[in-house]
Amino acid sequence: MSKIGMIQHIEQGSVTLPKGFHAGGLHCGLKRKRKDLGWLYSEQPAVAAAVYTTNAYQAAPLLVTKDSIAVEQKLQGVLVNSAYANACTGQPGLDDAYDMRRLIAEKWGVPEHLVAVSSTGVIGERIPMDKLKAGIAQAVQPEHQGVEHFEEAILTTDTCTKHYAVQLEVDGRVVTIGGAAKGSGMIHPNMATMLAFITTDACVEQTYLLQALREVTDQSFNMITVDGDTSTNDMVLVLANGQAIHHPLSPPHPDWDLFKTGLAVVSRELAKQIARDGEGATRLIEVQVKGAPSEQVAKAVGKAIIGSNLVKTAVYGKDPNWGRIVCAIGYSGQVFNPEQVQVKIGPVTVVDQGLPVPFNEAEASAALGEETVTIEVNLNQGDGKATAWGCDLTYDYIKINALYRT
Amino acid sequence: MSKIGMIQHIEQGSVTLPKGFHAGGLHCGLKRKRKDLGWLYSEQPAVAAAVYTTNAYQAAPLLVTKDSIAVEQKLQGVLVNSAYANACTGQPGLDDAYDMRRLIAEKWGVPEHLVAVSSTGVIGERIPMDKLKAGIAQAVQPEHQGVEHFEEAILTTDTCTKHYAVQLEVDGRVVTIGGAAKGSGMIHPNMATMLAFITTDACVEQTYLLQALREVTDQSFNMITVDGDTSTNDMVLVLANGQAIHHPLSPPHPDWDLFKTGLAVVSRELAKQIARDGEGATRLIEVQVKGAPSEQVAKAVGKAIIGSNLVKTAVYGKDPNWGRIVCAIGYSGQVFNPEQVQVKIGPVTVVDQGLPVPFNEAEASAALGEETVTIEVNLNQGDGKATAWGCDLTYDYIKINALYRT
Repeated sequence: MSKIGMIQHIEQGSVTLPKGFHAGGLHCGLKRKRKDLGWLYSEQPAVAAAVYTTNAYQAAPLLVTKDSIAVEQKLQGVLVNSAYANACTGQPGLDDAYDMRRLIAEKWGVPEHLVAVSSTGVIGERIPMDKLKAGIAQAVQPEHQGVEHFEEAILTTDTCTKHYAVQLEVDGRVVTIGGAAKGSGMIHPNMATMLAFITTDACVEQTYLLQALREVTDQSFNMITVDGDTSTNDMVLVLANGQAIHHPLSPPHPDWDLFKTGLAVVSRELAKQIARDGEGATRLIEVQVKGAPSEQVAKAVGKAIIGSNLVKTAVYGKDPNWGRIVCAIGYSGQVFNPEQVQVKIGPVTVVDQGLPVPFNEAEASAALGEETVTIEVNLNQGDGKATAWGCDLTYDYIKINALYRT
Repeated sequence: MSKIGMIQHIEQGSVTLPKGFHAGGLHCGLKRKRKDLGWLYSEQPAVAAAVYTTNAYQAAPLLVTKDSIAVEQKLQGVLVNSAYANACTGQPGLDDAYDMRRLIAEKWGVPEHLVAVSSTGVIGERIPMDKLKAGIAQAVQPEHQGVEHFEEAILTTDTCTKHYAVQLEVDGRVVTIGGAAKGSGMIHPNMATMLAFITTDACVEQTYLLQALREVTDQSFNMITVDGDTSTNDMVLVLANGQAIHHPLSPPHPDWDLFKTGLAVVSRELAKQIARDGEGATRLIEVQVKGAPSEQVAKAVGKAIIGSNLVKTAVYGKDPNWGRIVCAIGYSGQVFNPEQVQVKIGPVTVVDQGLPVPFNEAEASAALGEETVTIEVNLNQGDGKATAWGCDLTYDYIKINALYRT
């Protein structure tokens, strides 16, 4: 546990660290061997807010979740399956999603509208509901409880589970924010096949919880890219069950900003874990853009760089080919003066005032070999800044994706 | 030679098939072994029109070429080097580009403003001008003349030369349009590291030549993508020297549409050759979108599909993962009704009315193994249509780009 300002970072923390949350998962046969059905449950109804994919095709579980939250902006639990996305499955798929919701609600003994559902996996194939039902029937058994089971059950091609938590004080009481996520393929700004579940025992007004979630999502989950494909199933869901007992949080509350920062930290750390575990990735790339005429320009430039296959392969090859970085800045579609641009690869300045400067190739190449590769761009034209995260593009990306379905 | 309507297709034709054009190329030491300096020359000044990259960074040779054309909208020749892009090279690079222009103009004995220059290769390194000068000194020697030398000299990571020509009749006289191009890396809509040179012995008014070039470029070179990166050096240049002798072409001329179609055919065929030879590519992908509310929507949908790494890897793996196609349509940012979409892979319908339909996997997989893979999308919502071209994403793309510079 480390402390930054008033926020305690708990790297191994997850969605059950906040008071009153429980989670579990099991293998019900959707995948061959690994866990494929997970759930998250709050002892009491929690204020709920969510953001969803911008894809024109939205998977059935998203519609059902929206339907649930619409009733009283609260949820008590969420059921997640992997292996099947339940997207492009029409009315039968929508019926399946409602069935999922009903079955787990009955098992938990809570109203259906307090339950959300979520799916990730192959598009266009229906979930084998008999297997899913058998799984739900076992969901309350003690041996399947445990947050590590939940974290595993939501994965697809991910190579590791993803979680993070922070603690901070509100009205002098400890508030915890915890998160778990899955990512790997189809990761791109604006919600990709990426699921993130964030829990907190804070007491927050729904309107402001949603507003805060949108803000932090734009600076975290929407700033990562693995392959530029935005999926049909993305969702970030936050549940606040109020068990920490304090004055409800909203902007006038003196600890509101601290809470929002805590939410931002959890979101950013989950987003980085997702980017680092991109399909076939060996390294996390962090692009820091500053000196932009606006935040919007900084974001667009960061995303153009992090989305460039040529930059991604150069990182994989530890090749300090700064020309590709400059080129990506150039086609980002933003207005800036190319002659003021500075680019650094790790600590090594490679471009200054828009022109290459002599640099130590070995040093730059070494910076590209770090576990986290930092590319810093200064447009020297304002105060706008943004950070984007992604990963290198490798042989394994091709291997995974040329043969994923068959 | 095949005949389509009134247009004769000459697959082996190139830029010297139209009357009065000559070309050549040689090795001057910019590359280790292969030819790296090429030129194209018209016996008399030709009406010239060009379109350039939309990248904010425009390479020095583009500025010099614009400068030349601005004087009297005519050119008599163009000098092209490969291996060095002469981009992000500042004032010294610009001086180099003007030197290139001056030296070849002197060699040819024509005014400087009748000469264009073009470069392709690594960004940010200055061209070794001593080698280039030695090359220019030999440019008029007979052994270096020949269009095949020109076509080779302009290549970078291309695996083959690219050319096409057509013939048609204007005022009852034979008019020829020929083209040569290079592509391979950084190919994306809106001019990527892609150079195309088109010649014709037609007599065309400059305003209309430029207008026609822009139109056909939007339906050909701007509809291909290899990796989504738009380069600093792209240019499509057309030269019309009028040696076919006929009434000047402009929209009122009865053969104007035929000429424009000829120009479109040459552009499209060159664009397809570029896409097919994308870095590491094994197959050409042609995405046909129809039934769109507008041409603009059709283009955006086509580009989203052809630009998807997941679609490209699925083609490489011959995996009929139509979900990725549907997903790309969904994130194209266009307004359409997902429930009316039909998708075909080759002859195999895989999605109808937005939902998957049972299909023969082996047949669909075979269609993905064709030399040219066709993906057809019908939005069933209007008359808008467009075609986009690209290639599969393979291990070799990673290999080539992880280690290109070092």
